[in-house]
Amino acid sequence: MVTTSKPEYKVIGTRPVRPDGVDKVTGRAQYGADIKQQGALAGRVLRSPHAHANLKKIDASKALALDGVKAVVTARDIVGPDGDLSKLPDPAANILAGTKVLYRGHAVAAVAAINDHVAQEALKLIEVEYEVLPAVLDVREAMRPDAPILHEALRTRAPTGPSEGPSNVVAQTVSAFGDIEAGFAECDVIVEREFSTKMVHQGYIEPQAATAHWNSDDQLTIWTCTQGSFPARESVSQILGHPISKIKVIPTEIGGGFGGKISVYLEPVAALLSRATGKPVSMRMDRTDVFEGTGPTPGTNIRIKLGATKDGKLRAAYGDMAYENGAYPGSAAMYATMVVTAAYQIEHVKFDGFDVVVNKPRTQDYRAPSAPAAAFAMEQLIDEIADQLKIDPLKFRLMNSAAEGSRGPMGMPFKRIGHEECVEAALNSPHYNTPLEGPNRGRGVASGFWFNVGLRSSVNVSVQPDGTVNLNEGNTDIGGTRASLAMQLAETLGITFEDVKATVVDTDSVGVNDVTAGSRVTFASGMAVHEAGKNLIAALKERLAPTWQTTPDEVQFEAGVFKNADGSKTMTFKEAAVATVGRGVGLTVSGSVNAGFLAGGGFAHHIVDVEVDPDTGKTTILRYTAIQDAGTAVHPAYVEGQMQGGAVQGIGWALNEEYYYDDTGRMANSSFLDYRIPTSLDVPMIETIIVEVPNPLHPFGVRGVGEPGIVPPLAAIANAVARATGVRQTQLPMSPRRILETTRGIA
Amino acid sequence: MVTTSKPEYKVIGTRPVRPDGVDKVTGRAQYGADIKQQGALAGRVLRSPHAHANLKKIDASKALALDGVKAVVTARDIVGPDGDLSKLPDPAANILAGTKVLYRGHAVAAVAAINDHVAQEALKLIEVEYEVLPAVLDVREAMRPDAPILHEALRTRAPTGPSEGPSNVVAQTVSAFGDIEAGFAECDVIVEREFSTKMVHQGYIEPQAATAHWNSDDQLTIWTCTQGSFPARESVSQILGHPISKIKVIPTEIGGGFGGKISVYLEPVAALLSRATGKPVSMRMDRTDVFEGTGPTPGTNIRIKLGATKDGKLRAAYGDMAYENGAYPGSAAMYATMVVTAAYQIEHVKFDGFDVVVNKPRTQDYRAPSAPAAAFAMEQLIDEIADQLKIDPLKFRLMNSAAEGSRGPMGMPFKRIGHEECVEAALNSPHYNTPLEGPNRGRGVASGFWFNVGLRSSVNVSVQPDGTVNLNEGNTDIGGTRASLAMQLAETLGITFEDVKATVVDTDSVGVNDVTAGSRVTFASGMAVHEAGKNLIAALKERLAPTWQTTPDEVQFEAGVFKNADGSKTMTFKEAAVATVGRGVGLTVSGSVNAGFLAGGGFAHHIVDVEVDPDTGKTTILRYTAIQDAGTAVHPAYVEGQMQGGAVQGIGWALNEEYYYDDTGRMANSSFLDYRIPTSLDVPMIETIIVEVPNPLHPFGVRGVGEPGIVPPLAAIANAVARATGVRQTQLPMSPRRILETTRGIA
Repeated sequence: MVTTSKPEYKVIGTRPVRPDGVDKVTGRAQYGADIKQQGALAGRVLRSPHAHANLKKIDASKALALDGVKAVVTARDIVGPDGDLSKLPDPAANILAGTKVLYRGHAVAAVAAINDHVAQEALKLIEVEYEVLPAVLDVREAMRPDAPILHEALRTRAPTGPSEGPSNVVAQTVSAFGDIEAGFAECDVIVEREFSTKMVHQGYIEPQAATAHWNSDDQLTIWTCTQGSFPARESVSQILGHPISKIKVIPTEIGGGFGGKISVYLEPVAALLSRATGKPVSMRMDRTDVFEGTGPTPGTNIRIKLGATKDGKLRAAYGDMAYENGAYPGSAAMYATMVVTAAYQIEHVKFDGFDVVVNKPRTQDYRAPSAPAAAFAMEQLIDEIADQLKIDPLKFRLMNSAAEGSRGPMGMPFKRIGHEECVEAALNSPHYNTPLEGPNRGRGVASGFWFNVGLRSSVNVSVQPDGTVNLNEGNTDIGGTRASLAMQLAETLGITFEDVKATVVDTDSVGVNDVTAGSRVTFASGMAVHEAGKNLIAALKERLAPTWQTTPDEVQFEAGVFKNADGSKTMTFKEAAVATVGRGVGLTVSGSVNAGFLAGGGFAHHIVDVEVDPDTGKTTILRYTAIQDAGTAVHPAYVEGQMQGGAVQGIGWALNEEYYYDDTGRMANSSFLDYRIPTSLDVPMIETIIVEVPNPLHPFGVRGVGEPGIVPPLAAIANAVARATGVRQTQLPMSPRRILETTRGIA
Repeated sequence: MVTTSKPEYKVIGTRPVRPDGVDKVTGRAQYGADIKQQGALAGRVLRSPHAHANLKKIDASKALALDGVKAVVTARDIVGPDGDLSKLPDPAANILAGTKVLYRGHAVAAVAAINDHVAQEALKLIEVEYEVLPAVLDVREAMRPDAPILHEALRTRAPTGPSEGPSNVVAQTVSAFGDIEAGFAECDVIVEREFSTKMVHQGYIEPQAATAHWNSDDQLTIWTCTQGSFPARESVSQILGHPISKIKVIPTEIGGGFGGKISVYLEPVAALLSRATGKPVSMRMDRTDVFEGTGPTPGTNIRIKLGATKDGKLRAAYGDMAYENGAYPGSAAMYATMVVTAAYQIEHVKFDGFDVVVNKPRTQDYRAPSAPAAAFAMEQLIDEIADQLKIDPLKFRLMNSAAEGSRGPMGMPFKRIGHEECVEAALNSPHYNTPLEGPNRGRGVASGFWFNVGLRSSVNVSVQPDGTVNLNEGNTDIGGTRASLAMQLAETLGITFEDVKATVVDTDSVGVNDVTAGSRVTFASGMAVHEAGKNLIAALKERLAPTWQTTPDEVQFEAGVFKNADGSKTMTFKEAAVATVGRGVGLTVSGSVNAGFLAGGGFAHHIVDVEVDPDTGKTTILRYTAIQDAGTAVHPAYVEGQMQGGAVQGIGWALNEEYYYDDTGRMANSSFLDYRIPTSLDVPMIETIIVEVPNPLHPFGVRGVGEPGIVPPLAAIANAVARATGVRQTQLPMSPRRILETTRGIA
């Protein structure tokens, strides 16, 4: 661990046993599909076999006639008998298609039956009449004026005003600073390349699963393995037009999300089926549903031109970045423009981001959304310039590194950040200082940035009669936030980690919490916890003061101890809690914050050694080191886990993963047998170096750590492969086939 | 309804649909036995067949050898391998007997098996060696020096100091004011009688049921149909020596309690079985278990002497009241001394209360504990004096009625109370003004008092983005407190009842709440709700002030509307909530109170017409009117339900219910076939008159209403029977047999 100066913490920085560990290793933790409601029906979704088609007619009569089938719902159940299906608004239309299906896997109907077998049988009996339309699957093709149009009503949002006619281009986002022409004119070295990446999936272990019960008093309860119970509540409310105050979302444990479990899919459908049947309805996806019916990350086409002076100063960068949004508008390219150059100080930049709809599933976030593909392009060009200038690639990055005060996302100056420290840690690492020898081997490095978000968090803290405290939070615990929040509360109150019991509660039981995403929970909910802790200390001062015959203002709290003005009376937090709450009145406080949009930003730097088999094209990861600025590592073991997880997912993305489409828009590899994510046999132990440059925006200096770690691997591996093979890789995945094609011309 | 002046409320006093109604009528509400945990085992309790015996040996080897049996636990599992069973402290010894069984039904061991059938089979295989001791079943016999002693270590607590030797008398409580000798000397009329009542059961519909899961991280979760999740947590903690911070009690819906579901029975046993097996363990009682193994209300023997002057002034009262505590010490007689004369102003009183252990189940509260038996005695003597003085019994009560400032329980002067108003309402009632005609008929009246308690309550209130609020409370909702608390919150905030969603949450999710008993929840939790409402209004003022360019102090809140100083800006609560929380930061507040021990007191007065069949001795209730001071009736339909329920339970107690013991201490009627509670065919519609004399201790004038209604019926019916038959009844139940014995000498 590389740490700049920070306060001495007692709990933060330790590695206590995770509070959810026992339930998870004993199989007792309840995930989405573990919810069993009495009398529940099984729900299943019928999905479009076509990538693009008009939906002419749905006839469910045969399905409804099947014994055990209780209901079939379609988009008609959303808009009502008199509603206009063609005007079904966006989020609803992705849940159940209105008049058009826009991708293979698009939900068109759903059935509830007495069990899953009957439900699956019933799907085959639903007769759907499609008018098949030409599909467009490639982002650049979709941008062409003659491309098949997905949404007749869509007009491009652009700096020059909306497009005249319908288009598949959702928006053109321009991020420009300085004078790009002048910038390139100053450069001695200019490199320019086109890169493309394929749609990949987050690959979370647990498929989506949800249970809904629409009670006869219109109270709707939803159990779901979501990344955000409050956003899920809001989405369901919006899609179904049902007031949020009549919806309670109970989050279950979640077996991975990585951005893919922010959107609702099954929840509103299960609710409709429950409303139709009066019974709870449980739904779960299989892996093909997950691949075809949820939100993977965009495929991209990125052209970047980068220039530097011969003394190693980056001066100008231009990019044209086209990101697939899948079937419905998104803002993936906009995010890309915010982060692509963030690791470096480049005076003259201009990036055009194009968000584009194609006939594929609506894309969603996947850890540091949009950033890995942008880094795949940018960090290779950085390496190429460094090579041309004969500067060590790490030193070149250091020479141009972003730092406090330099321009960050949206033109905002960075507060204190840790990119330089990460690159220095790489330079000083055992890995970088161990020469890599042998044929067909190469070492690559790359930096990565993610801005992290703050947003809204709210927690409740109750004092127990024995002086321990309960921390009730509203964020799904994906990456260990029960532990990281409990630790921050313990630190605030000067008590032990074991004296805090953290629980994730439902939407009825705590103030609004935004999604568990953007690496925001340990950061923003940590701020809420810190505020609640301060409120609790203030409340205990109020209670102690009369017994100490003083005023609350005169009671001090330091290092976990209350004392009166002359220090003659002291009590630890726990003693004070027992004394004032023990046999007395309950005490609950809350802490609520809006931590803003930008949360200070996190940087990562990765080093990877590869060996490329010249005969098979297979790339083996020999050694991998992940370095990351955690601000303050609250629970270092979890931080390391996030760094390792990001690296491994990046390795999969770099080398093997892709949505493999045939010409009709059918995904040909929609199972984990054919969609190849890394197994433990595919990766070495990922070495980690945590860098700590405290985040000035957070009371404990915390930075979100979930996302930066997936940004560098694609580029780092490409840089390593380029050194191992002498051939630069511009397309993902760098599969054996692709390697052979590019190194030996074998197609 | 008879109402003294009160503010105009918008929500309080209305009769909205109960929020738990749909789930209860559709069968979806989850009661104690509805909890199904995956992999749960079934637990069963082995109970003593003897009323009094030394427990020599328990051999579970044959039971453990039965296929499907997973564990057997005894008190040894509480004290540990080296613990001294003979020193097993009181609450634990009633859960699992140590070295002695003290009543038939006393738990001696428990088994966990794969299902309930195997568990029941296993009970038969547990071999227990008893040394049977003589039992004592009658309270006066148990007081004799030569009675069999239950607890060798028990010494009587008395004003004269502890008894020298062991005794069955737990305590002698003396409540004396004035000069009792002088008082009687002033009297022109003195009556004196001895009364006795039998042990009866609360008769709640739902038998006890609990599920416990002792996780391998020592976190213990308990689901139970308790009257108090927090007291249950504390009891389990105390009995098992497990810290409360590692215990979470999740209260289910509860099918009646009436005081009988305050104590834990199955919860600690299920926890021990779960600890032993590593699985969740579910236990439920059958009705015989409930009768023999839980806590009924004491049998009593009460001698009262009452005197008045010939002008109708009560001057002196003396009483000797012996109350069974069952097998373990209690304080039933102490409560009786607090309430027996509370309805009247009598200058000279002396009451000796004797709490006495006998070989019966440990007694528990049953609505207004101890008061009905005391009133059965007192209110008959009142009637007798009134008769002798030829004063209308209602007018006689009015002449002597307690009122504001007169001496209440523990000698504390009453605040404003409503006994006079209740009796006046009776005098003015259609019932009392309709002559009762026909042979063998009689009308009786009686007053009743219960002091009600306040104690600790804590609630959390969260504002939802749509301006509705969630109210999370920690008290089991037995009698409609979700509704009554939501209504008080709505009234405080100036919103509708429908805009408040009330939920009962677990012990981890809210500050400490005392038990749902003592008619305290609508009262004390109502105060907590009111405080939370005020906190919420203050918080919204803080949020509104900056947008209105003013200070929070300048923002007024009146009649549900915020306004600035000059009234130029106004917002309803809901508008303000949407404006400040809608897309903003969450807002949760809590309200916590200690409402003290005494809560102002509630009075009831009942009128009953009976007809006694001279041939069979059967008493038929012809007409029944219940009158009660509710302070402020928050939800009048619920108040009426409480009044009717109390009356019906009192009718059963008066006419039919009793624990019928044989000489060996075996209850001979431990099923609802033989233990006769009233059915709808046995009672007429109970007419109700709500009196409202606002309680000055409560912001909305609320008084607890659950308990006073069971106090008058025993005496009112006895007074009616005396008028119908000419014979005064001094023993309960006034069963046909008892009526025939007393009216015709038939034994």
